[in-house]
Amino acid sequence: MANSRFEYVKSFEQPDVLLPNTWIVVRIDGRGFHKLSDHYAFAKPNDRRALDLMNAAAVEVMKELPDLCIAYGVSDEFSFVFHPNCQLFERRNGKLVTTIVSTFTAHYIYKWSEYFPERPLLPPYLPSFDGRAVIYPNNRILRDYMSWRQVDCHINNLYNTTFWTMVLQGGMSNTDAEQELKGTVSADKNEILFKRFGINYNNELEIYKKGTVLYRQYELEEPKPIKASADEESPVVEFQQSRSQQDKTRKLRRKAQVVIDHVDIIKDEFWEKRPWILSGNPGKLPA
Amino acid sequence: MANSRFEYVKSFEQPDVLLPNTWIVVRIDGRGFHKLSDHYAFAKPNDRRALDLMNAAAVEVMKELPDLCIAYGVSDEFSFVFHPNCQLFERRNGKLVTTIVSTFTAHYIYKWSEYFPERPLLPPYLPSFDGRAVIYPNNRILRDYMSWRQVDCHINNLYNTTFWTMVLQGGMSNTDAEQELKGTVSADKNEILFKRFGINYNNELEIYKKGTVLYRQYELEEPKPIKASADEESPVVEFQQSRSQQDKTRKLRRKAQVVIDHVDIIKDEFWEKRPWILSGNPGKLPA
Amino acid sequence: MANSRFEYVKSFEQPDVLLPNTWIVVRIDGRGFHKLSDHYAFAKPNDRRALDLMNAAAVEVMKELPDLCIAYGVSDEFSFVFHPNCQLFERRNGKLVTTIVSTFTAHYIYKWSEYFPERPLLPPYLPSFDGRAVIYPNNRILRDYMSWRQVDCHINNLYNTTFWTMVLQGGMSNTDAEQELKGTVSADKNEILFKRFGINYNNELEIYKKGTVLYRQYELEEPKPIKASADEESPVVEFQQSRSQQDKTRKLRRKAQVVIDHVDIIKDEFWEKRPWILSGNPGKLPA
Amino acid sequence: MANSRFEYVKSFEQPDVLLPNTWIVVRIDGRGFHKLSDHYAFAKPNDRRALDLMNAAAVEVMKELPDLCIAYGVSDEFSFVFHPNCQLFERRNGKLVTTIVSTFTAHYIYKWSEYFPERPLLPPYLPSFDGRAVIYPNNRILRDYMSWRQVDCHINNLYNTTFWTMVLQGGMSNTDAEQELKGTVSADKNEILFKRFGINYNNELEIYKKGTVLYRQYELEEPKPIKASADEESPVVEFQQSRSQQDKTRKLRRKAQVVIDHVDIIKDEFWEKRPWILSGNPGKLPA
Repeated sequence: MANSRFEYVKSFEQPDVLLPNTWIVVRIDGRGFHKLSDHYAFAKPNDRRALDLMNAAAVEVMKELPDLCIAYGVSDEFSFVFHPNCQLFERRNGKLVTTIVSTFTAHYIYKWSEYFPERPLLPPYLPSFDGRAVIYPNNRILRDYMSWRQVDCHINNLYNTTFWTMVLQGGMSNTDAEQELKGTVSADKNEILFKRFGINYNNELEIYKKGTVLYRQYELEEPKPIKASADEESPVVEFQQSRSQQDKTRKLRRKAQVVIDHVDIIKDEFWEKRPWILSGNPGKLPA
Repeated sequence: MANSRFEYVKSFEQPDVLLPNTWIVVRIDGRGFHKLSDHYAFAKPNDRRALDLMNAAAVEVMKELPDLCIAYGVSDEFSFVFHPNCQLFERRNGKLVTTIVSTFTAHYIYKWSEYFPERPLLPPYLPSFDGRAVIYPNNRILRDYMSWRQVDCHINNLYNTTFWTMVLQGGMSNTDAEQELKGTVSADKNEILFKRFGINYNNELEIYKKGTVLYRQYELEEPKPIKASADEESPVVEFQQSRSQQDKTRKLRRKAQVVIDHVDIIKDEFWEKRPWILSGNPGKLPA
Repeated sequence: MANSRFEYVKSFEQPDVLLPNTWIVVRIDGRGFHKLSDHYAFAKPNDRRALDLMNAAAVEVMKELPDLCIAYGVSDEFSFVFHPNCQLFERRNGKLVTTIVSTFTAHYIYKWSEYFPERPLLPPYLPSFDGRAVIYPNNRILRDYMSWRQVDCHINNLYNTTFWTMVLQGGMSNTDAEQELKGTVSADKNEILFKRFGINYNNELEIYKKGTVLYRQYELEEPKPIKASADEESPVVEFQQSRSQQDKTRKLRRKAQVVIDHVDIIKDEFWEKRPWILSGNPGKLPA
Repeated sequence: MANSRFEYVKSFEQPDVLLPNTWIVVRIDGRGFHKLSDHYAFAKPNDRRALDLMNAAAVEVMKELPDLCIAYGVSDEFSFVFHPNCQLFERRNGKLVTTIVSTFTAHYIYKWSEYFPERPLLPPYLPSFDGRAVIYPNNRILRDYMSWRQVDCHINNLYNTTFWTMVLQGGMSNTDAEQELKGTVSADKNEILFKRFGINYNNELEIYKKGTVLYRQYELEEPKPIKASADEESPVVEFQQSRSQQDKTRKLRRKAQVVIDHVDIIKDEFWEKRPWILSGNPGKLPA
């Protein structure tokens, strides 16, 4: 509807299309979750219900946006990954990020009472998330990004597990525990856990040690060396992918179940058995 | 915590700081609200509860972010405005937009049952919003942006009011009503409403005709011609504003009540009586 | 000419349009001019011919691009300023900057032999320049930018004049002169010049003390307080300026002479007497 | 040197770092070369001296910037390519583009009289160039970019050769020639050249048919299938490349001769025999 002499203000909007043929990672983070987790008395070092709620909300995001091919969550953050051939919203940065942030928030708030029935939400302590998009030019670097997050998960969880065991079981003050852990390496923390508290860190839950990976489930394949890069297939093909082909791919993706897994995503095996993630081509649906 | 050989992936994050000393408008829009409003049976042409819910969520955003100086809402969209001297999140585009989108979504979902007690939310029809930031270099253009939205509100509301009256009261089919309205101007629509249905458009609710403007309430001032630009005060001052001064201003803003108004924001009067909006300096709190 | 299956690579080009209605400053800098000025034996602290050559090249840039309304040069740098209403090259950043850098370089090389007839250019010591565009949202900040450069000129020239006098006339080593000047303020340097060498800094050439300002010459006007901002005139007007009006303005600008001046551009007077610079409207051509 | 209250204007400069680990292509184009080539009476359809001058200037750019690994020129344009591991100027877009544009312009102007001794440059007809940077995420797409330019060269040269032969040898008017060529395919043009003028297009000079490719010369290697992507080598390595290693690589590159070639760069052979171009690692210097 042609409008008014004020319409020129639209010319101030600036394009924010992300470089074609690159991986897009949208990472969201809880805002002020330190205070929030105190307020709602999240368990330390990990609150299983809080993690399950994060994962449940993330699954809904994956379902609503079939263009997403994998997601990884740890603590109050989640990374959602679009394939280089993704054309959703013409790859507009703002549109992709805000859609994910808003959809995630909506489901998180909506499902809260299911996971925390005894602790109803009460403003001003309403959970919210911020987010940002980052692009990565090839498979190697996308995988390094995923590895970075999972290593971070491991480092933080080992620290937190040790710290809170020292405090909650060992009766130490926060300050003393912090002081003793300063400068320690992994082996030191493993030893503290084992020698003082009889805890074998390896027996901790996988969800705590590995974080959560979400992806669409097709039939697993025999591990075979994967190509390190997405560009082996001519990008020309991708660029010429018609709208109807895109729609078809989207439908195939919707049919696949989104699974919640807690496994190593640093080594090759995870990716080799699930080649559809890096290739962007839906696999074979399980019988 | 120094981390791992994967940490280099952080270097792919690109800065997105918005130009200093410009107005920042974050506009959010309901995603797929056409379908959504059908599903939850919003009244046509306007659903008062849906608008009140939008406004309630927006008020919470204003309260959580004292840096916001005005907001304007119509239908399923809301524009939030930061003053040129705003330094929140170092003016990072992504951070500002996603924080607003997520906070708004959280409150919208949380308050839904209060406004639609008889229509509980049911996935996959969960409301969500996307958003974008646009910067405007001076007061004149910021005001033109606000005028653009209010003119849009007027044009759409006159059309929708006429259309739905023809359909709901006049018994016309959607297609016939649409056909008849094609090419009509405002006067034509006013006449249809008045002659056929005895409706004087001027008597429609202000919230429908003018949309909703939110701002912090201080004592109104005698209208006096305002400067057309924010740059009359030396920007140097703004730039040298210390962190403690910023905090003080923020506290003063928190003390002011956020009011919900449905008035003309195109003419000068609105802005002249509330000089604190364009100046960015808190006014005098009402006794 | 529709081309080939390779043409998709064009989709990787990203837009770089500068925000509308803002001042655009393109600043260029000599690359490696420290080494270059040694090689061609530029006089210290200022080489008049080198400055004249800079100015001559800048005048040619002003002539070729009538959209430029003012330029300021000091040492081996030059700042070229486009008015907020400039639409040249649709305000594309890369196009504006590279056009200025290349045009300036071309004239600088071409005119070299005229200013340094006895020192022919010899690769690899070929002068070149880099550049960047910065936008400023209002007149106040544009003027602060110009003031910044002129203050810089003053500070550097006072230092260099004192330093080189101490070395060349006072017979001090570079290190000793540097050491003595460390921590001194302007008054100290003035005193060194006057007491030791009988030099009154005020009597130095204006081109050295003030740098060079270029602008189109129209009839000077009676100084009257100018508006601090460009946005007093409704930007709507500027946006609706037709292509033929733009062409007409361009022609009027071509007719004006580009003058080379060495005056204070920090105080209001310069701008008040030449209102056409900030207004963007050509003045009255001198009889 | 801490400066003044105006220094805040620096905060308006915005970062423009190009995404890491991507190919950077800087393409420059002659400004207004249509008019310029008329003025200096360039031969039609190709002026050998003008091309040689372009190539000579481009060689100088390659020599000054050892980070460049290949360049391709046709007509009045040249594309300069930086490897994904390039860190020059911290990969700042503006700095890279303006440096190349200015250096090229300087040499072009400087060398003009050598190539056109009988046609001295005369302002305002001074050649200048604009430029832009585009990034490409992998080897496949970089090569498609190069192919795009070479296909363009072929298409344009076949057209121009036919057109100008029809005009200059066939005595046709420009309009008639244009009219006849409208809608023709390559085979048609080849036939016109051969049947009417006895010209076998294949015998035209390679520089006209293929354009010019510049690269550093190392010992050619036995063609073996190359990896399609740059990301096979872990990018981690590249990121950890120390400054001293970068300097060493730079020195090795400076030692290699820059060669001027007119060959097919679309097929694999060119790249397979010169693996150093895509790998970014200097090869073995010829004995």
